[in-house]
Formats: sequence, structure tokens, C-alpha cells
Amino acid sequence: MSTEATSIDASKAAAASAATASTTSATPAVEHPSSKKNKKAHHFTLKVPKGTKDWADKDMVIREAIFKNLTDIFRSHGGVTIDTPVFELREILEGKYGEDSKLIYNLEDQGGELTSLRYDLTVPFARFVAMNGITNIKRYHIAKVYRRDQPAMTKGRMREFYQCDFDIAGIYDSMVPDAEILKITVDGLTGLGIKDFKIKLNHRKILDGIFEVCGVQEADVRKISSAVDKLDKLPWEAVKKEICEEKGQPEEVADRIGQYVKLNGHIRDLLAVLKADEKLMANESAHTGITDVETMAAYLEAFGIDHYISFDMSLARGLDYYTGIIYECVTEQSAPPKDAAEKKARAKAHHKEEDASEYVGVGSIAAGGRYDHLVGMFLGTNAKGKQAASIPCVGISFGVERIFSLINQRASLVEKIRPVATQVYVMAFGGGKDWDGFLPERMQIAAKLWDAGIETEYVYKAKANPRKQFDAAEKSGCPLAVILGKEEFPEGKIRIKQLGTGQTDEGDLISVDDLVEEVEKRLKSAHEDGIDEISRLLKGL
Amino acid sequence: MSTEATSIDASKAAAASAATASTTSATPAVEHPSSKKNKKAHHFTLKVPKGTKDWADKDMVIREAIFKNLTDIFRSHGGVTIDTPVFELREILEGKYGEDSKLIYNLEDQGGELTSLRYDLTVPFARFVAMNGITNIKRYHIAKVYRRDQPAMTKGRMREFYQCDFDIAGIYDSMVPDAEILKITVDGLTGLGIKDFKIKLNHRKILDGIFEVCGVQEADVRKISSAVDKLDKLPWEAVKKEICEEKGQPEEVADRIGQYVKLNGHIRDLLAVLKADEKLMANESAHTGITDVETMAAYLEAFGIDHYISFDMSLARGLDYYTGIIYECVTEQSAPPKDAAEKKARAKAHHKEEDASEYVGVGSIAAGGRYDHLVGMFLGTNAKGKQAASIPCVGISFGVERIFSLINQRASLVEKIRPVATQVYVMAFGGGKDWDGFLPERMQIAAKLWDAGIETEYVYKAKANPRKQFDAAEKSGCPLAVILGKEEFPEGKIRIKQLGTGQTDEGDLISVDDLVEEVEKRLKSAHEDGIDEISRLLKGL
Repeated sequence: MSTEATSIDASKAAAASAATASTTSATPAVEHPSSKKNKKAHHFTLKVPKGTKDWADKDMVIREAIFKNLTDIFRSHGGVTIDTPVFELREILEGKYGEDSKLIYNLEDQGGELTSLRYDLTVPFARFVAMNGITNIKRYHIAKVYRRDQPAMTKGRMREFYQCDFDIAGIYDSMVPDAEILKITVDGLTGLGIKDFKIKLNHRKILDGIFEVCGVQEADVRKISSAVDKLDKLPWEAVKKEICEEKGQPEEVADRIGQYVKLNGHIRDLLAVLKADEKLMANESAHTGITDVETMAAYLEAFGIDHYISFDMSLARGLDYYTGIIYECVTEQSAPPKDAAEKKARAKAHHKEEDASEYVGVGSIAAGGRYDHLVGMFLGTNAKGKQAASIPCVGISFGVERIFSLINQRASLVEKIRPVATQVYVMAFGGGKDWDGFLPERMQIAAKLWDAGIETEYVYKAKANPRKQFDAAEKSGCPLAVILGKEEFPEGKIRIKQLGTGQTDEGDLISVDDLVEEVEKRLKSAHEDGIDEISRLLKGL
Repeated sequence: MSTEATSIDASKAAAASAATASTTSATPAVEHPSSKKNKKAHHFTLKVPKGTKDWADKDMVIREAIFKNLTDIFRSHGGVTIDTPVFELREILEGKYGEDSKLIYNLEDQGGELTSLRYDLTVPFARFVAMNGITNIKRYHIAKVYRRDQPAMTKGRMREFYQCDFDIAGIYDSMVPDAEILKITVDGLTGLGIKDFKIKLNHRKILDGIFEVCGVQEADVRKISSAVDKLDKLPWEAVKKEICEEKGQPEEVADRIGQYVKLNGHIRDLLAVLKADEKLMANESAHTGITDVETMAAYLEAFGIDHYISFDMSLARGLDYYTGIIYECVTEQSAPPKDAAEKKARAKAHHKEEDASEYVGVGSIAAGGRYDHLVGMFLGTNAKGKQAASIPCVGISFGVERIFSLINQRASLVEKIRPVATQVYVMAFGGGKDWDGFLPERMQIAAKLWDAGIETEYVYKAKANPRKQFDAAEKSGCPLAVILGKEEFPEGKIRIKQLGTGQTDEGDLISVDDLVEEVEKRLKSAHEDGIDEISRLLKGL
């Protein structure tokens, strides 16, 4: 069953979702006009599907700047990009997401293959690596993914949202690519001006070892792990209850787990604590994980990023496919509200599953981990029936919507954004009955500037008065006006005037032949190209 | 029924489609490994859905360069970008695409709203304009669209493909934005080094007038138009047959249409011919259209692009929503093979509809037109039950896959493409049992370069021999190596060596403190950033 089956009732779905999920766009209820073919009036609400939104204006400038900044960092580490289809064969996605598989969007069976929208970029990447026989690659992929989750738009949780992923696939020395992924994570966030974050770090093998040492049976490890995963939003008591009541563990097992999962701190400090735990070190899985983290600590120190790390035994990560280190970036701002844990606990105790889900997934702005067996799941067996060796992978996924929300709160940055790139407005001033408004002439001049790569506009009117033309120029925020005068232009002369200075001068009269050169000269000081300017703003430069 | 219902048979679908559609990626048949949960072996073909493909490597570099070039031109004309969800409410798309509506992909009804993948970017744009009460906007949108068409990958026709759209919405003087759209079209293609193209131009109102003058009833105009639309791939005789037999017109009506639709030529020449046709000029619709084209001719001349235009009475465009000028860009290379028309005619005559569809849609690399009523369809009626005034629009859509195919044929360009941006490879040379391979030291140096914005890699091995490190650097194609020597580095010295010169020198020994400055100095001459380099190549600079 769908998670929203209870709230949806045929045609009332639209109104219901509009009431529960806020979008940035107005969603007026309008009447569909009757067409020639369909005389009967058809009523519908003009809106986008639940959990999706349009992006426009300054929001788009910010989002593209986020993409550009992350792309530059990914390329800086030797990354190449790929693009995979938005839908995959359904069987490719099956059995990869554990409990979350119910959130996958399926395409209708219209005769042909069964397909589903991708749930993340990781499984398509693993499929790509396996399908093309790739043995090593550093790839980034910025694209939309789809989850039929309960939307919470104010918190940046959508049904359609972007992920920015960087992954390293290949057999390398232990923890070397893992450490570089964390360097990319730190640089990705700091490059966007986000500095007050922590990277929670854990290792699946340590976690598995802890559960085993505490008395959990091997078969139960994954489900206990997914209960522990809720600790960032739920108090221990609620998680303990789930471990005991829903997952059927004895209370003393849960209590032992509780002692471990409250451990967190600086990577070297917590390593010391864990290494002093003889029982834990005797567990093979935990021992391997602890050795890995110790190896990585030296690399994180070499990169100078160890102070961002909070080694945290409560981090479990929901997805099935992780096999090594796992991590999640949280900021002060992205933490759930103070009473969220309590509310969540109450919701869990008294209401339906759906009501509690509002608190799931809040808080993390980037997350990832090592997944060594996922590619192997696609590689299958060789001619002798032996499982082909997998290609180990480690990666990070930046949550763009959440990062966007953080940046969009910086009012001083947002107010400086100009969505259009226009540098020059071409105008014509004249008058009298004999004057035609110089429209083809303005077009010629605009074409000259476009051909020189200069962003140029003019008013789409045959005759336009000076006021209207200045208003249009001002609205675009462009720094220069080029003015064709009724008498001057036929003599080969044209005016250039600086805009936004508050001055009422008539500008400089120059030869039309010198136009491009003069415009370029004046733009040099005023130049900005929208996206790069915002990149500088983002970084706080 | 689906267009592919006959060719699909449950699990054999994959193999069937792999046989009929060539992809750039290998699609090996592998066995799905048995997981713990699913001991029964599950066989499936590792592939992407029919009509879709993965993009990677040099292909991605070319495609991103196409996007960047088109984006620069769109922004040069004052364009802003928007992003709409990949799926829309189904009722938004209904009744917009005529016969092609059967090609729309629906999402499964999983409890909630009925949604479908977008078929183009135009209808979502109109929905966006209407929903947000926008009265004027110049917007560009580069995104994937979805059509359940019969794929023909070698011809660049896919089920998932990118469109690059630029549209101008708003009430302006006649033909002013229309002419600018054609300037953008010309600059978009020439900016990508595509110069041997023609823009076929027609006007829906002229076409409608022609049909009326020839004796077609008003109610039949649209279906005659869609028959004429096939003239670029079918000989007149086949179209005539369709007009008479399928669309039920008398032969003399078809013959009169035949006289008109063979007319084409330079815009001013054909205008003269049409204006001399008294019967046509007496038709109100034709008269309006001809006046529009005459107005536009002056603007196209002002932009200096009239020589790209072929005013062509056979151009009809399939979509329902066009109301004014329509256009389609074709190149010599993108024309269908010589025998295609004949094959198509035979297919039409002897086979099922699906077999003929292989020839539909080949040839056009960009297309668009004016659609004045589409936004109005979403605006509905006001409080008094009166239809709200629409926002007139005109736009162009570049077909990226087709343009990509043209560019990908330029071998001399493709061979120069380097997918990675790496500028520096950090290496360590040493030896002996006491030497650890300087891995954390290489990391420190790499971090220093990354922090300065320099694209840097190193080998992910604790100890790596010089040969392996040089091989990796060479594979990346980067111009510089930075070398940490076993004795030199502890003394604060480091080597910089130019790569790819064929020289066996040891490079220059410098102080570690001067590293960033020295690297930047050396990169200045060798600098290239991947995408911009390819942009220059594309333009043939």
C-alpha cells in the first residue's frame, strides 16, 4: 500500500496536498476553458504534483551556483561526469533499498518493459560500472531523484529533488579514496560558505561488531541497525522500545547497545576508548572497522580536516548497501527543532506511521559511505558459476535542496542576485511624425553586440518612449545603455551611458564603428556574469 | 494500445529491444547473483530501458559544451532559466499534442495524483506562466523530455532526450520577438560550428488560408495540416493519397493544395508570389499571415540572417498548439537518406503503422513557432465566466541529441577532448625499507593545490613506483607533475616537471613554500579547463 493511501481521495487529492505542503508558487484554482473538442467545462487546480516545485528567478541562480561550485570541486579531484536515464528497469532497483523500496515511483505498464524512476544516483552508478566493465572511475553526477515520501517542503524534503554525487570506484589501498571523499565533502560545503557543520562518522563493521558483542544474532543485525539509525531524531528510550518490542531483542541486549551508541567524540579520542575495549577488539568485524578508521585518521589529519569529524557510534545510515565507513553532515541550522524528538516519540506511540514520518530525514545536508558489494550484485556469475569480483566504491551525496535552504536564508547575499545577465540596453530617442522609432536599427546594433558576445536587450516595440526604455533597462539591472539618437545615428554616431549612477548626464557620443570596443572597455569595470558573481558571494569573498 | 505492443513479450523484451536498437554501451547478459534473501537465481539482462542511454566520457564533454554554448546565447538575449518537475499532473498534458498524445509516459497510480512524464518543455512552460500570473518572460530551459516513440538511436531519436528551449512570452509589437527567436536559432547553431543549415519557415495562418482557398472545410483544416506535415519525408503522391483516402477530401481539393505546398524560396521572392495571388490575399487568414511574414522579413534583414531562411509552404509542424509562424532547421547531413521517402511510402502502403514510424522526425535539429493560446488554456475563465486573455508566446527548441550526432562526426575535434580537468599529478619517488611512500605528504601537497583551486590527483597507493605514477599522470593527460623526493622533500624542496613533452629531464627543484605560485605560473601557458577548450573547438576557433 502507498504511504498516502489514507489521505488521497480521487479529485480532492490536489486540494488536500495543497493544504498540507507549502510551495513557493501560488496554486490558484481555475476553471479549464472549454475547447472546441470538449464543450463540457472541466475544473482542475493549476498546480504541480505533490512534493515537486518549479524553480525560477533568484532560486535558480543560487541552485546553479551550488552546482557550479560542487562541479568545480569534483573536477578538481579528477572527476568525470556521467548521465544515466531518469528511469531504470525495475529489476535494477529491486532489493537495493530495504524498507524504503516502497517509496519507489513506478512507470505505468503501457506495454513494454517495467521501469521505475531512480531513487538515488548510487544504484544507477553501480549498474553503469557493472554494465560497462569499468574497473576504476571517479565520477560525479548531478541529477534529480524521486521518492514517494511524505513531503515537508519547508524542511527541504521533496518527492523530486536533486542529488550531487561524487563516487570513487576501484581497488585501492585501504581508506585512501575514503579520506579523499571526506576532503571533497568538507571543501564542497565550505566552498558554499557553510562552515558550521560536523561530519558524523561511523563504520558499518564496527557497528556490526558492537551488535554481535551485545548479543544480537547475525540475522538480526541489519534490522537493529535500522532502528539505531533513528537515534538522531528519536530519544534512546524510543529506539530501545523498537529494538525490544518490534525487533524482538531482550532488554539486556538493548541496554548493552545503548551503552555503545551514546559514544561519540573526536576521532582519535574515541579510537582510544574503543581500542581499550577488549571484548570489542576481540570481535573480528569491529577490529577491522577500528583499524580502518585509525588508518583514515592519519589521512584526515594530512588533509587538515579531522576537526570536522565527530566519530559517532549512533550513526547507522538506513540503506542496505553500505559495507564500510558511513558519514552524514549536519549543521546547527539543519538540526531538527528541539521538541522534534519528543513529538516524534509521541507520534510513534499514539498515531499512524505516516504522522511520525515528518521527522525522518531532516538534518543531513550530505551523506555517504563505502559500498563494496553493490557493483558485484550486477556483475553476476562467470562461466564457472562463480560470483564475479565486485568493484569497491565509496561516495558522497550532497542534498541540494537542503543546502539551498541554508543559503537562501542569507538575505544580504540573496538581495544582490540578478537573474538576467544583460549588460547593455539598446534604446532609440526621437519624435515627430516622420520618425519610425529605429526598430530595425536597434536590432542591427543589438546584433553587433551579440556577435561580440555582449548580453544585450532592447524594447520589443516599433516606437518606444525614453521613459519606457529606461524603465526596462533599470528592471534588468544592466550597467550600460546604448542610445540611437534621431539626428545622431544617421550620422554614424551613438551614445553610451552608464546606468544606475543616479546621474542625469546624456552619456558619451562615439562613432558607431567604435561601439563594441567602447562597450567592452566600460564593461570591464562593471562586468559580472551572474553565476560567477554569485559564486563569489556564496564563498563570502 | 501501445505502439510497441506487438514486439514486446514479457521477459523477452530486453533481448528484443537490444537487437533492434543500438546503444553505445555493451549490454552483456549476466546472471543476477543470489542474495541471502533470494536463493533462487534470477536472470536478467543488464541494460538501460529501451530508447534511453547512458552518457559518459567524451560524449558528456561535448553535450555539456553544447549546453554551455546555447546557455550563453540564451543569457545574451536577457533569458532567465526555470526548472519544472519531470512529471506533471496528467490533465495538464491532456489535449495538447493531438495524435502524439499516445506517446506520453504515465506514472503508475500508486495512490495519489495521476501524473505523466513531460512530453516537451513548452506545455510545462505555459502551465508555469499561467500558474504564476506572469505577463512577460524570456526563459530558457534545458532538460529531458519523454516520448514512447519507436527509438532510432543511430538517427538520434530516443525515448528520453534533452531539449534546449528558449521562449518569449508577452504582448509585444508584431513579429519583434519572433525575429529575435530566429536570430537566437541562427546564433545557437553557428556558435556550435553548424553552418550548412536552412530554416524552413511558414505561418499557420497562411497554411490555413491556403487550405480554405483550396476548398477544405474549417473543421478539416487541422487534419489536412498534419498530412501536409509529412511532406519532408513523403513524396506528394503519398500525402495526396492520405488527404483523399484517409482525410476524405475530393481529388481536386488535394490537387489545388499540391500546387501551393510545392512553393518555397527566399522569403522576399515567395512573398511576392503569394501577394500576387488575389484569391489567397482575399482570404483573411492568409492575408494576416502574409503581412506578418512581410513585417518579419525586414527584421530578419536587420539581423542579417534572412539568407538562412527558406520560406516553404510545405512546412506544417505536427503540434496542435501553433498559431503563427512555424519553423524547422534542417542540415544537409540531417536530411533523411535518399531512399527514405520511398521506403516510407512502401511501409505506409504495405505494413503496419509502427514500421513506417521509423522515418518520422528525422531531419530537424531545431524547431518551434508561435503559440498564442496555450497559456490561455490554463488561465481559464474569470469571475464573470469570461475567458481570461492568453499570454502570447513564441519559441525555439534545439534537439540536442541530433546536434550531438552532427558534432560527434568531427573526428579532429573529438580526438582533442580530455574528459578530466586534472592539471597536476602529485608523485613521490624514493625506495628502501625505511621509506613509507610519502602518502600523507602527497595528500598534504594535493590539499594545498586543491585549496588554491588547482585540479590535482595522486595515486591511491601507500607506496607507488615511479612508472605507475607517470602512467597514471599520462592517462589523465595533465600537463604537470609535482614530485616529492625521498631526500629533497624533508628539506622543504619539491620538483615540478612538465609532462607530455617527451623530455626526460628531472624538472625544476623549488621550495615547497613557492609551490602554488610556481604551478600557477607554469599552468598559465598550458591552461585549459576542459569545457571552455571544447567550446573553442566547437566554434572552430
